Amino acid sequence: MSDELKKGLEGVLVAESELSFIDGDEGKLVYRGYTIEDLARDASYEEVLYLLWHGDLPTRDELAEFRADMASHREVDDDVLDLVADLANADEDPMAALRTAVSELSAFDGDSDADPTDREANLRKGKRITAKIPTIVAAFTRLRDGDDVVDPREDLDHAANFLYMLNDEEPDDVLADVFDQALVLHADHGLNASTFSAMVTSSTLADVHSAVTSAIGTLSGSLHGGANANVMRMLQEVDESEKDALDWVQDALDRGDRVMGFGHRVYNVKDPRAKILGERSEELGEAAGDTKWYQMSVTIEDYMAEEKGLAPNVDFYSASTYYQMGIPVDIYTPIFAMSRVGGWVGHVLEQFEDNRLIRPRARYVGEEDRDFPSVDER
Amino acid sequence: MSDELKKGLEGVLVAESELSFIDGDEGKLVYRGYTIEDLARDASYEEVLYLLWHGDLPTRDELAEFRADMASHREVDDDVLDLVADLANADEDPMAALRTAVSELSAFDGDSDADPTDREANLRKGKRITAKIPTIVAAFTRLRDGDDVVDPREDLDHAANFLYMLNDEEPDDVLADVFDQALVLHADHGLNASTFSAMVTSSTLADVHSAVTSAIGTLSGSLHGGANANVMRMLQEVDESEKDALDWVQDALDRGDRVMGFGHRVYNVKDPRAKILGERSEELGEAAGDTKWYQMSVTIEDYMAEEKGLAPNVDFYSASTYYQMGIPVDIYTPIFAMSRVGGWVGHVLEQFEDNRLIRPRARYVGEEDRDFPSVDER
Repeated sequence: MSDELKKGLEGVLVAESELSFIDGDEGKLVYRGYTIEDLARDASYEEVLYLLWHGDLPTRDELAEFRADMASHREVDDDVLDLVADLANADEDPMAALRTAVSELSAFDGDSDADPTDREANLRKGKRITAKIPTIVAAFTRLRDGDDVVDPREDLDHAANFLYMLNDEEPDDVLADVFDQALVLHADHGLNASTFSAMVTSSTLADVHSAVTSAIGTLSGSLHGGANANVMRMLQEVDESEKDALDWVQDALDRGDRVMGFGHRVYNVKDPRAKILGERSEELGEAAGDTKWYQMSVTIEDYMAEEKGLAPNVDFYSASTYYQMGIPVDIYTPIFAMSRVGGWVGHVLEQFEDNRLIRPRARYVGEEDRDFPSVDER
Repeated sequence: MSDELKKGLEGVLVAESELSFIDGDEGKLVYRGYTIEDLARDASYEEVLYLLWHGDLPTRDELAEFRADMASHREVDDDVLDLVADLANADEDPMAALRTAVSELSAFDGDSDADPTDREANLRKGKRITAKIPTIVAAFTRLRDGDDVVDPREDLDHAANFLYMLNDEEPDDVLADVFDQALVLHADHGLNASTFSAMVTSSTLADVHSAVTSAIGTLSGSLHGGANANVMRMLQEVDESEKDALDWVQDALDRGDRVMGFGHRVYNVKDPRAKILGERSEELGEAAGDTKWYQMSVTIEDYMAEEKGLAPNVDFYSASTYYQMGIPVDIYTPIFAMSRVGGWVGHVLEQFEDNRLIRPRARYVGEEDRDFPSVDER
């Protein structure tokens, strides 16, 4: 037993994992041995899910079966849609709505009575949750805007189907491809806080729905999934200030304000995901004939590198990418969840393979040996 | 950075806390300097909540105000009651139902737009969640049994009001007192897994509702909160076997079965809470004219001490205590949540006082340097 306090558990090894490897000095991210660059370029989100959960990329037949199976689970029960409508009416925060709706999914899951460590049942649960999250997010977004819910289509891929349900319009190939790539890039990232919370929850032998619900709540915080929306709010502020981005960022730093989207506990160089999304952000701007969001981002990136030695993280470029796709800013974090659920489920499967209850210690620094006073002696 | 793997984070210090101190060798549990024996005997659950959240026991006026404020928040929104009815109809697991319903509370919380680190807002949120959990548990239990929901009463204490809502009958003083004591005994216990999951969630600056929702999911696992129900199922099995408890436990050990309710990561001696609840279990049996559940428990306890050197934990005696109070077995874990929410909220308040994102590491043991194959090359 060490008496050293490890508040953020920085550098503490709590698991062995075969899922993803991060080299923060080289700016390298790998899922099960494949570089994120290869996967972003050549693999669909469904292929990445299969890879994360099964260990290898699927053959053509395996992929076809996996895709069809996932697609068949996109619809949610009417009770869940009613709940989503209530939450939209109550103007609930989108991540809180997703947390509640995903939590309710367990009531209608065909494997809810399975042993919590049954790997096949957990794969089915994970697949169903992953298939249904886009349906929940799209329904919530449309309902709060007063639009009708668009039912999922089985013939579209995971990414394209979400954009179709969100906009009631089939996306063109570029949008579908960029969105699929964003899902691939966010699918896993070691033991980030949301993934770790899923592991802590499942370490008591709680079920997959509990683990994913914990992870969604954890992702909602501004130090984690909430960061991408805050980057976009910052870029909008730059735009509205009518200042040059360079002047804006100088002023912000002079005021001592935090510039969003920079620095990451595990990267000392530019996040490889930021590189890829930066390119897509530029392309989307060029296609629309206005690269202002991209250029603003580059200006801020260059200044931060020079002045602070800080490199952008994935949130910095996902912001302008999603914005140029017409996605509402407060849906960025639910989209993060839509992707990261692949990693959450993968890590829960690993946790159950060799489970140990996760129970750390606190150093007690409170009062000692107090005599209990009656209420009149206080 | 150490390369030692700490899977269960055993002995790892992740926080400083003023809330509770456990001496596992002495069998000692203390909340903010007061022994659990003093608190169980002399303090109500409301006083313990006040103590945990504010640091000191309340004066008479503070307690009256705190009680009245808590009581005024017992009712839940109609949307939440509708959700609970849907979950009861769907035959949802009681802990899963509680997780979903508590998650939905954020949609109707008056402080949902507050800064997540605003201590006063978090106290109000914590108080409202704590006040509403009994209402949700009682409503769910009655609805699934086909009974009407009983509205909360403001004139009863927290413990008595729950029993009233559960049974549509005001409890006698003994039942109300035993139940209040059970809530006091379970209110906090260091960084157990559910409390730690609440801290991991809040470390991203996620809100109190997210943290408590994570904790409920984590508590639901059979290695944590689920244990008390499993103890009772075991005692029922002993009873139905028509064997003497001594023969039953010998046979169980010979078969290599696990005997529920023994051993605890932090206690090497008898859990002080088990001592207190053991006495109450005996009293309830005597009052009912049949101490068979208590006697069965003692026989098993003595045998396990002699043969295995294992002492009972809190779950071992809460089981027969709740059973003799007529509480359905699968509601024992929700009752645990009803109490432990006090600790969860207390630790979240501490987490926000000096927050650090909780993000450990995994040792990567997976594939390396794989070339990406096209789908036909797989």
